[in-house]
Amino acid sequence: MADPRFFAVAGPFTAEEISRRTGATLAGAGKEKLVLRDVAPLETAEPDQLSFLDNRKYAEVFRQTRAGACFVHPDLAREAPKGVALLLTPEPYRAYALAAQAFYPEPPPVPGVAPSAVVDATVDLGEGCRIEANAVIGDHAKLGRRCLVCANAVIGSGVVLGDDVRVGASASISHSLIGNRVRIYPGVRLGQDGFGFAPDPKGFVKVPQLGRVVVHDDVEIGANSTVDRGAGPDTVIGAGTMIDNLVQIGHNVQIGRQCVLVSQTGISGSTKLGDFVMIGGQGGLIGHLNIGTGAKIGAQAGVMRDVPAGETVLGSPAFPVREFHRQVAALRRLAKQSND
Amino acid sequence: MADPRFFAVAGPFTAEEISRRTGATLAGAGKEKLVLRDVAPLETAEPDQLSFLDNRKYAEVFRQTRAGACFVHPDLAREAPKGVALLLTPEPYRAYALAAQAFYPEPPPVPGVAPSAVVDATVDLGEGCRIEANAVIGDHAKLGRRCLVCANAVIGSGVVLGDDVRVGASASISHSLIGNRVRIYPGVRLGQDGFGFAPDPKGFVKVPQLGRVVVHDDVEIGANSTVDRGAGPDTVIGAGTMIDNLVQIGHNVQIGRQCVLVSQTGISGSTKLGDFVMIGGQGGLIGHLNIGTGAKIGAQAGVMRDVPAGETVLGSPAFPVREFHRQVAALRRLAKQSND
Amino acid sequence: MADPRFFAVAGPFTAEEISRRTGATLAGAGKEKLVLRDVAPLETAEPDQLSFLDNRKYAEVFRQTRAGACFVHPDLAREAPKGVALLLTPEPYRAYALAAQAFYPEPPPVPGVAPSAVVDATVDLGEGCRIEANAVIGDHAKLGRRCLVCANAVIGSGVVLGDDVRVGASASISHSLIGNRVRIYPGVRLGQDGFGFAPDPKGFVKVPQLGRVVVHDDVEIGANSTVDRGAGPDTVIGAGTMIDNLVQIGHNVQIGRQCVLVSQTGISGSTKLGDFVMIGGQGGLIGHLNIGTGAKIGAQAGVMRDVPAGETVLGSPAFPVREFHRQVAALRRLAKQSND
Repeated sequence: MADPRFFAVAGPFTAEEISRRTGATLAGAGKEKLVLRDVAPLETAEPDQLSFLDNRKYAEVFRQTRAGACFVHPDLAREAPKGVALLLTPEPYRAYALAAQAFYPEPPPVPGVAPSAVVDATVDLGEGCRIEANAVIGDHAKLGRRCLVCANAVIGSGVVLGDDVRVGASASISHSLIGNRVRIYPGVRLGQDGFGFAPDPKGFVKVPQLGRVVVHDDVEIGANSTVDRGAGPDTVIGAGTMIDNLVQIGHNVQIGRQCVLVSQTGISGSTKLGDFVMIGGQGGLIGHLNIGTGAKIGAQAGVMRDVPAGETVLGSPAFPVREFHRQVAALRRLAKQSND
Repeated sequence: MADPRFFAVAGPFTAEEISRRTGATLAGAGKEKLVLRDVAPLETAEPDQLSFLDNRKYAEVFRQTRAGACFVHPDLAREAPKGVALLLTPEPYRAYALAAQAFYPEPPPVPGVAPSAVVDATVDLGEGCRIEANAVIGDHAKLGRRCLVCANAVIGSGVVLGDDVRVGASASISHSLIGNRVRIYPGVRLGQDGFGFAPDPKGFVKVPQLGRVVVHDDVEIGANSTVDRGAGPDTVIGAGTMIDNLVQIGHNVQIGRQCVLVSQTGISGSTKLGDFVMIGGQGGLIGHLNIGTGAKIGAQAGVMRDVPAGETVLGSPAFPVREFHRQVAALRRLAKQSND
Repeated sequence: MADPRFFAVAGPFTAEEISRRTGATLAGAGKEKLVLRDVAPLETAEPDQLSFLDNRKYAEVFRQTRAGACFVHPDLAREAPKGVALLLTPEPYRAYALAAQAFYPEPPPVPGVAPSAVVDATVDLGEGCRIEANAVIGDHAKLGRRCLVCANAVIGSGVVLGDDVRVGASASISHSLIGNRVRIYPGVRLGQDGFGFAPDPKGFVKVPQLGRVVVHDDVEIGANSTVDRGAGPDTVIGAGTMIDNLVQIGHNVQIGRQCVLVSQTGISGSTKLGDFVMIGGQGGLIGHLNIGTGAKIGAQAGVMRDVPAGETVLGSPAFPVREFHRQVAALRRLAKQSND
């Protein structure tokens, strides 16, 4: 089970209850009343625990699991060891996520303002907010209900947070309007000046950065990521978008809904992403591009041109996936010939 | 206009006054007394607002702007819609920067030390400094005049800041000497140990890092960037250099004047950059290199060798720009042939 | 000598004493009593100072050094200028490290808890700990002896630190068990949620992250690096591993002993590294890989497949080193031919 120093387990739940909560179909009969006390990885799960198989790579581990119940795709059900209760679903990972949320519900913040927190008298704090030790909130900021501002975080003047926003330890936010249920992880930097200056023989001339960062509902921004505010227009992150750690978002960037940006991705100024765009780790996009809805950009890709909706690009410079694979294959053959 | 929760607008200014302040030439007659109340992007600018066209890509937007006045290169002036007052200049972005500074002058810090700040009794604070809530300044640090140390920032023992330095929220500085008008953005880490250790069968042996970070005047260091102090020599950043977010500067690196390092660039230990070097986003340089004055290193380039002054290199491993483009083109042709 | 504002020098030591402490052989006679007062780089070392030559690239500087004594590999000893006392060793950098530690011993933390630190009443603080200004330590955390928690750092509920751990300014740690003599640099983020969510037409479903970060003895984690806790299993960093700045370690990653991860490296979830693995700057590994003991992964390499023990891979996508070099050479020839 999860380390009780850090996590409190709820439940138990019957297999039937788990089926009901997740939409997975309980296979075979007689398992409805099976009592499940926890979730666990396949390798370590016990007979009163619930696990999942989501990656064919782990089928061998699945065959030997001692888990009492397991979410699995119907196509892989035949690999199951005897006795395990199968919870069939086309989306085992999603079902596991919902079950794990049932076993480990996130506790709401315990309301209160730590004595060492510095909250300006003009701040509008919604009910149920928790402001931890040494956090600082500037004048005229406005927080919705049940916000959690962790230790040593800094919320600047005039910043607006919606309801149920969580701001991690030592994060800082300025010049930003944040929606509901947004999670800002520790060390995130939101709303500072973009990288804007004009060349001049006597030294660069700083361009005032007069926009904001606008973050829509249900966004997550990973640890130590940086999002600069707009130079004139705003920098915008669409609802439900997931941003990993150490990601850089330049000024005026517009990101659509439910995009996924894996860690260490960088997006240069004024580039626009449609909805459902995915960018692999360390992907890089130059500025002023348009990336269409549902486009996929590979890890370490270097995108220098617009990408049409639905297209997958790889490589640096990035090419459409088929062309990239042809290039890699052609070069391998060429290198082999040269060596023969 | 810029969100008044975050920005206060100055002015208004006449077109003539803007011409005088920026050096741009007001075209045509009768526009001298035009009253301008704000700057704005071309798309949203109103008849009493000032905009600029700097990128040919936005010429179509320019043709339809309702802006009262606009900075534009003489070559693009004929694209202007009727009625807009043209401010002609070979450097419209620079002129816009100066105008925007006039409309949105940066307010000087309001002097004072927050009650929750922890400033050692031996600190030498120049007049006009502002030390915000929960900032910490160690013994014998020395700050020039009008420095701004934002909330939760940490300035270590003995650190020296010049005049008009701004240290962002939650940044930390140790073992460093900082010039005048330097901007350290939120979350920057300046002066920690470099990555120095010697191999040993029993575990790595740590090499004491005995140098400093020396930052010259007018440098900017972007959010969450890291600059390690020297191992023996200093790590040095030359005057006027602009460093974006999430950039890594290793120990003993020497950077010249007015260089530009775009976000997520990494420079390994002991590499030296001349003046006016530009590095695109996610560029990487191994250690102990010499990069000549005015060299340009492309985004995601991987530089393994010295780069002569004025040369442009691209790719990983990096090659001179022409050779890189020939390689990309040759590989595309080869892949196409293989496929035919 | 090192700037006395930041460093206090110990000593002096005789050449004989240095030889004894480092295992280097003092060449020639009559130098045993030579008094050495400091370490210094070759370029600036004075006759009472000790230096080292570790990189053939600096042989010319060595020939002109005024250093009183110098660690050098026997093969390069003949390049020495007259009069310098040679300390011969196959590992000059390691010997220099030990000597520099003698001249600049790291002072133990001065015990005490700053009045502005917020340490929960249930925290178990070992003897000799130093908790600096505005640091925050949550309930039931447990710190070993002589730990140093720098200004504005945050240690979360239940976190365990071993003896002699140093946590840098503004770092944050949650859900983690940390061994002895571990150094967490400023701005590190340890133990936050991994990047885990399941797709769903109505928005991503968050997967509770129920594991921990386990850091073994003698590990260093560089400034602003991020290590996510496990999703179910733990994220594990083996003893003696050195992690540079701005490195990303995903959930469930397991890293062996004495690995070296250069700055801006990213390792995706569930990938496993054996012992003594080295990854160059900006290297990237996708998830669920196995990297064998002693494997070397080049700077900017993009690793998409398992790497056998002892193999070196380069490029993106990564290939074994010989194949990579053949590819680079073949492409150069092809581009040259196309141009002729």
